[in-house]
Amino acid sequence: MNLQSIDWLDQPCRVPDAASAAAALERQAQLTKPPGSLGALETAAVRLAALQGVLKPSLERIRISVFAADHGIAAEGVSAFPQEVTGAMVANFAHGGAAISVLARELGAELEVVQLGTVNDPGALPGVRRAWIAAQTANFAQAPAMTPEQLALALRAGADSVRLAAQAGAQLFIGGEMGIGNTTSATALACALLDASPDVLAGAGTGLDSAGVARKAAVARRALELHRDADSPLDWLRCVGGFEIAALTGAYVAAAQHGIPVLVDGFITSAAALAAVRLQPGCRDWMLFAHRSQERGHACLLDALQAEPLLDLGLRLGEASGAAVAVPLLRLACALHAGMATFAEAGVAAA
Amino acid sequence: MNLQSIDWLDQPCRVPDAASAAAALERQAQLTKPPGSLGALETAAVRLAALQGVLKPSLERIRISVFAADHGIAAEGVSAFPQEVTGAMVANFAHGGAAISVLARELGAELEVVQLGTVNDPGALPGVRRAWIAAQTANFAQAPAMTPEQLALALRAGADSVRLAAQAGAQLFIGGEMGIGNTTSATALACALLDASPDVLAGAGTGLDSAGVARKAAVARRALELHRDADSPLDWLRCVGGFEIAALTGAYVAAAQHGIPVLVDGFITSAAALAAVRLQPGCRDWMLFAHRSQERGHACLLDALQAEPLLDLGLRLGEASGAAVAVPLLRLACALHAGMATFAEAGVAAA
Repeated sequence: MNLQSIDWLDQPCRVPDAASAAAALERQAQLTKPPGSLGALETAAVRLAALQGVLKPSLERIRISVFAADHGIAAEGVSAFPQEVTGAMVANFAHGGAAISVLARELGAELEVVQLGTVNDPGALPGVRRAWIAAQTANFAQAPAMTPEQLALALRAGADSVRLAAQAGAQLFIGGEMGIGNTTSATALACALLDASPDVLAGAGTGLDSAGVARKAAVARRALELHRDADSPLDWLRCVGGFEIAALTGAYVAAAQHGIPVLVDGFITSAAALAAVRLQPGCRDWMLFAHRSQERGHACLLDALQAEPLLDLGLRLGEASGAAVAVPLLRLACALHAGMATFAEAGVAAA
Repeated sequence: MNLQSIDWLDQPCRVPDAASAAAALERQAQLTKPPGSLGALETAAVRLAALQGVLKPSLERIRISVFAADHGIAAEGVSAFPQEVTGAMVANFAHGGAAISVLARELGAELEVVQLGTVNDPGALPGVRRAWIAAQTANFAQAPAMTPEQLALALRAGADSVRLAAQAGAQLFIGGEMGIGNTTSATALACALLDASPDVLAGAGTGLDSAGVARKAAVARRALELHRDADSPLDWLRCVGGFEIAALTGAYVAAAQHGIPVLVDGFITSAAALAAVRLQPGCRDWMLFAHRSQERGHACLLDALQAEPLLDLGLRLGEASGAAVAVPLLRLACALHAGMATFAEAGVAAA
């Protein structure tokens, strides 16, 4: 296997099972409730039936991969936090103190942290898979963020996580990210893919004030101008993306190729998801959307992806935390779908 | 004890613990995440801290009481389902086939069904507490729905459920309802309490078409005119309410008196919650709101209660189902609050 080949991206996506969807929809109509009265939970159960190819889907085995990487663009002063936080948070993930550590534990989900490169390196840690590319990307306000080889490695790291998830029998894959500066990278990527202005998409990230947001938008604008000759989603991913964003894109493509549903988290993961859909439109079928992030640019990405997320809780943490919080809703949707009595079973008159 | 006395309604509500709220807020600021980045989950954890009077709240023991009753107003043709469904659903609750049965099982919550009176009586059933008042209320388009004695019994039945919940050590009380015709009752009550028109508040209930909604609004309008001399929230509850709606009102007042937080479900429970707040404004402090129902009038009730529910999933089933679906979010909020590392513990630099 040539690690620097990206030919695998062109392998076809699986197609959801329409017969299972139809059977699940018919079952929903027979359950002891007014038709449609469970709203988005009904829709979710029917979609999961199609994606898992069964009448009664379930979500016992869930795999969460959080991709961590540092960004050269941090040198432009675009984050409220210092860059060493990325490496420190990798250690926090491993030691169980981060939000996603707590959530994965509560959900009984397997958590894998993928270390793609951080400026301070916490070294080998339990639960952390090292797929080191470099300490950080290049500052994309001055040069392409990645070399073609680095992009290929990052995409592959995401696909590897999905392969490991598939081997573990995961019924749902969740990708997350950690990387100081990565909302700036995601903003630039989203602007490129949507042909939108950073003035519209740039947001507060981890907590910038309005002057900080303006500076971030200016940095993204400069980068979009610098890389204006980029001529494909993949080229934009290389020029303004990050290792973890490219890994997420690779993971979403690979999940669709493996036929594993993904639950997309927030702003940065949605930028990666849009890149994946631009590479392979068939990826979209495998995506469920967890929540509407507080981060300003997320609404545009959700619109472009025609996504209707389950939650709107004002979350803006990343790390896959929003997706993890939505998991119980999907599990309850499955439980209701599988466990409720039909009108005939319960001897209840239908409308 | 005089079962027909309602003097207990005037007993004072407990007051949430401001010191616990302040301590919880301070803890939130130290956890390894950008301040505020967990949005509504942070708010929920801090409120639960105040209501439970502890730094780290938890929701292991949850009690769900579903109050079932039939409505004389059903004779006006205001529901998509026949009246015998209420009694049949009581049996379905008991046999584990209803949505709330499945949800309670999944959550490990205790489910109590309270049988206040149904036209067809399924008789004694496991998990069903009989607090029989009458087979149904009077048709409130022609006469007051309840006698003063019936109202007192219904209010007391709700308070009894809360007392049982307190004895079981419940950390959260959830009320639900089942009763064919009860959205019409809730609509009339909400209109009376809000001085609003049934044309604005009446909705599809279990699935009326637009002609059905217009008929329902006309029935409610007629009833509001008939009972125009009602001069208090309690009097309106008696004239146009239902046994289960009055029981919920009694439960919400009693929960505030016991100092047990409640998670309000949807449209009908919110009408009962508004009645409780009108009886005792201090009740409001003890209410969390689960979801924004698809039922048309819910938005007005949520506005009047200044409520910001956690979920908006297009649910409109009742039975406490929307509240049950929100429970995992509150539990995850508690787990994050209690289990995340602080910046100091994790050695992560704060912003």
